[in-house]
Amino acid sequence: MHAYRTHTCGALRAGDTGQSVRLSGWINRKRDHGGLVFVDLRDHYGLTQLVFAPETPGFATIERLRAESVIRVDGEVVARTPETVNPNLGTGEVEVRVRAVEVLSEAAELPLPVFGEPDYPEEIRLKHRYLDLRRETLHRNIVLRSKVIHSIRNRMIGQGFLEYQTPILTASSPEGARDFLVPSRMHPGTFYALPQAPQQFKQLLMVSGFDRYFQIAPCFRDEDLRADRSLEFYQLDVEMSFVTQEDVFAAIEPVMHGVFEEFAEGKPVTPYPFPRIPYREAMQKYGSDKPDLRNPLVMQDVSEPFRGGGFGVFARMLETPKNAIWAIPAPGGGSRAFCDRMNSWAQSEGQPGLGYIFWREGEEGGAGPIAKNLGPERTEAIREQLGLKVGDAAFFVGGDPKVFTKFAGQARTRVGTELGLVDENRFEFVWIVDFPMFELNEETGLVDFSHNPFSMPQGELEALNTRDPLDILAYQYDIVCNGYELCSGAIRNHRADVMLRAFEIVGMGAEDVESAFGGMLNAFRYGAPPHGGLAPGIDRIVMLLAGQTAIREVIAFPMNQQGQDLLMSAPSPVEDKQLKELHIRTAPPIKV
Amino acid sequence: MHAYRTHTCGALRAGDTGQSVRLSGWINRKRDHGGLVFVDLRDHYGLTQLVFAPETPGFATIERLRAESVIRVDGEVVARTPETVNPNLGTGEVEVRVRAVEVLSEAAELPLPVFGEPDYPEEIRLKHRYLDLRRETLHRNIVLRSKVIHSIRNRMIGQGFLEYQTPILTASSPEGARDFLVPSRMHPGTFYALPQAPQQFKQLLMVSGFDRYFQIAPCFRDEDLRADRSLEFYQLDVEMSFVTQEDVFAAIEPVMHGVFEEFAEGKPVTPYPFPRIPYREAMQKYGSDKPDLRNPLVMQDVSEPFRGGGFGVFARMLETPKNAIWAIPAPGGGSRAFCDRMNSWAQSEGQPGLGYIFWREGEEGGAGPIAKNLGPERTEAIREQLGLKVGDAAFFVGGDPKVFTKFAGQARTRVGTELGLVDENRFEFVWIVDFPMFELNEETGLVDFSHNPFSMPQGELEALNTRDPLDILAYQYDIVCNGYELCSGAIRNHRADVMLRAFEIVGMGAEDVESAFGGMLNAFRYGAPPHGGLAPGIDRIVMLLAGQTAIREVIAFPMNQQGQDLLMSAPSPVEDKQLKELHIRTAPPIKV
Repeated sequence: MHAYRTHTCGALRAGDTGQSVRLSGWINRKRDHGGLVFVDLRDHYGLTQLVFAPETPGFATIERLRAESVIRVDGEVVARTPETVNPNLGTGEVEVRVRAVEVLSEAAELPLPVFGEPDYPEEIRLKHRYLDLRRETLHRNIVLRSKVIHSIRNRMIGQGFLEYQTPILTASSPEGARDFLVPSRMHPGTFYALPQAPQQFKQLLMVSGFDRYFQIAPCFRDEDLRADRSLEFYQLDVEMSFVTQEDVFAAIEPVMHGVFEEFAEGKPVTPYPFPRIPYREAMQKYGSDKPDLRNPLVMQDVSEPFRGGGFGVFARMLETPKNAIWAIPAPGGGSRAFCDRMNSWAQSEGQPGLGYIFWREGEEGGAGPIAKNLGPERTEAIREQLGLKVGDAAFFVGGDPKVFTKFAGQARTRVGTELGLVDENRFEFVWIVDFPMFELNEETGLVDFSHNPFSMPQGELEALNTRDPLDILAYQYDIVCNGYELCSGAIRNHRADVMLRAFEIVGMGAEDVESAFGGMLNAFRYGAPPHGGLAPGIDRIVMLLAGQTAIREVIAFPMNQQGQDLLMSAPSPVEDKQLKELHIRTAPPIKV
Repeated sequence: MHAYRTHTCGALRAGDTGQSVRLSGWINRKRDHGGLVFVDLRDHYGLTQLVFAPETPGFATIERLRAESVIRVDGEVVARTPETVNPNLGTGEVEVRVRAVEVLSEAAELPLPVFGEPDYPEEIRLKHRYLDLRRETLHRNIVLRSKVIHSIRNRMIGQGFLEYQTPILTASSPEGARDFLVPSRMHPGTFYALPQAPQQFKQLLMVSGFDRYFQIAPCFRDEDLRADRSLEFYQLDVEMSFVTQEDVFAAIEPVMHGVFEEFAEGKPVTPYPFPRIPYREAMQKYGSDKPDLRNPLVMQDVSEPFRGGGFGVFARMLETPKNAIWAIPAPGGGSRAFCDRMNSWAQSEGQPGLGYIFWREGEEGGAGPIAKNLGPERTEAIREQLGLKVGDAAFFVGGDPKVFTKFAGQARTRVGTELGLVDENRFEFVWIVDFPMFELNEETGLVDFSHNPFSMPQGELEALNTRDPLDILAYQYDIVCNGYELCSGAIRNHRADVMLRAFEIVGMGAEDVESAFGGMLNAFRYGAPPHGGLAPGIDRIVMLLAGQTAIREVIAFPMNQQGQDLLMSAPSPVEDKQLKELHIRTAPPIKV
């Protein structure tokens, strides 16, 4: 017989009745009942109920042992009586009458209970992560993560991609977030950096002639932490050669759709091709470039009915050309109580308020102060434009859209959520496309890159040479799911001449560009294919599928929000000898 | 039509004749022939021959373009004449008559030729790795690496393992090789470390209740470099719960056998179960714990025939009890010329020489000085013991086996290689098992751990309490293939009490153990399953399969032997601002 088990704790079925078996696992729960001791024995695969009678050798031991001790038992599989069958358990039709027990590892008093998963302070959970990870929910999340990643890998390979590893000890990036640095022992005074993303390497792989690259790539950013952000995280890093934007979409949509459908437990997933919404349209309709399309509300510009009208605040605003009035329709929100509640919410967000009109029985022409000032004709025009009816409302934000768009988006979200219009049980994907290549830096009044200087401008060199930079769009795109940005991507600028011209527009001379990005530019000078890609965040995908909002619930050994690994005690002081070998000294901040 | 291609450069076949196609790729090679220009167009997938006639639009351009420029062509697929068919090329039955060409990226003069792969200094290859990677051999190696890793993953998952990621920013290890350190910005004066291996995390995963873990894990060691060692490398990290050593073997053998067989291109691979050879036996038979079993030679102890015999050097040696005489049989080596050559080789290795006997026609009783001194009877005993015949030889090493074993192993390798007995075209696997738990430190005269203090001693606590430590074996094992150690592994010590006792034997008190390894010890106190694992080196597996001896030939972006990334210029100086944020200063060594 095997030293530890003939079956796992998830294996036994009614058909095994009568068999002599050996099981090993953790004591999940222990109950005394009618002189017998019942133990739920747990391992990775499931639970099996053990029964110890007073005459069982080791009965005293089992009475003494704490939960989470590890034991091995020999016994006989017996059928449970019909009234004690547990239909929620794979092994629920049987139990094991124990004949012999051996203690493999006795548990001390637990700092963190496992069974029942009672709420516990996060610091304790992280310090004793090996206990936390035994809890059912976290165990399931981590297994889900593993399966999601494997599914992504197989789907990428099914799409003709190959996975290549890129260096983790690499060079400090000249742009982007803050790098983690690694002092070099062999080269005093110099440092490696951990990659914020393998961006340059994946582009170099394309220049090296590999056609379809992916990598489940660890990335590192020394940034302050949030619930959904970690110092180290994984992305599905993707790059393809000889492609247009549509080729990238066509390659990745089946992967994203497929993996979500596989693990969504029946929740609907947007069929592909996913909708594509230009950036400017997304901002206007949803007040965000990360719209949650589970929320059906679509904002509209209603400047015309307000222009020169009797509602003075908005009419005066519209005398400034850049200003506009946007409406958030609120079907089913047609009550003063709801409108007042939304207004209070807006005030709590630091806004002066949230103007509204609502339509109700007896006031079919529109109720509320705005309607009164605006008059029936213009109010009716708004109702018609928004397709609203009695029982509905509309909320208004006005001014410079650059200033109010973000708040308008929040108001749209709030209205949709409050009215129960958001279907939580679905995954809604959308591509946001056509991001502007350049934007005006309001502080300096100069033109700057909007996002990524390395994206290809639509119209390429000709556009850069002939068009207003602020009108030039980039082949740059995001995937958004349920309001979360899963990734950014772009068709890259693979031409040194186009790149130098793009940098010239933002006032950076050829010499500076060569000095900052010479490595890439040089590579492009020896035959570079057109290429593009993207990099969905793995942790975020798993978070969405696990229904979690904290990244720590989908990572086996996460840090706390102060960037500390409480289990392994990292970061920690090191020996002077180590620092000396690395040619560095610590220089703690001087306390004043 | 697609913007860049209707087919890849590896796709077209005779059946495509007459089709109008679009291809994109690199100019691999260009030849003028009878007024036409022939271009081999290359991409990731293959080569296609293009034909440009003088009247083709863009003919002048193609004449001007350098190799490695990227072009797009439209043209017609035509069958090659029978005498120009290239049977070595997938597309060798056709060529494309070009109708139009567009330059996607023009190549400057190349610092490193691609076509033909002429030898080039490694510094130039690494600095222009994006050109180097376009060379056929390296491209093939990197694709092989990707496929090997994918195959390993699928085979592991097929064996019921799941892949889990462990942290890369973690704590400095208290033992082992030198850590890479990462200064913490948020916690002045403290450091993260990059993992030398996820050893502690994989054991913690077992303690956390995950049963079968694997990870293609990046590992980091700040050690001086060799051709087959890199600062960062990957291992197939594996751990299992509730297992004995044989369970680990049974899980991993089909994976290793399968992946080697899949990529061995017909070379035989040891069927599993692989042979298991105890450490002490391996040292005695092969003079190494990494025996290359493609070499059929097995050494034997031949002390008895020499004891008290006429060959004074050996007879006197044997008066000291710890000394012995070992023989390396050399079938087919029975000539004075060969024996002299081996003797000279030994001297070139710093040895006094290599004693021998050989048997040849006319001297069937044994020739050479040793035979002469030893006399016919004892010489015959040696011949019989070794199973040799006329035409063969035997070489002898004598003294303290601790001192000579390594050289004896080298001599065995040399004899086998020189006599052509090593079959290069096979993969020979073997487990080396039963490593000693402790060894005598010759300098201090004290008992020390032989390898890993965290392995379970055979016999567990009872053995530690009752036996001579130097007689205790560990559940520790290596996989060796063709003389390369692919990995070490062990059944772990999962009991705090056994671990404390093992450390006590090497003179380390409970307090020191708690302070150095308290994290693991504590975890073991809350219910730890028996567990074990191993970690084959991925880079080395790919090296073996690719027939390479330098790790840089199987890594896309490797460092040079000075630990520098010449392409990205790492490591490099950073800005003072960055150091300040990290609370460190550089302290370069003072030059005297």
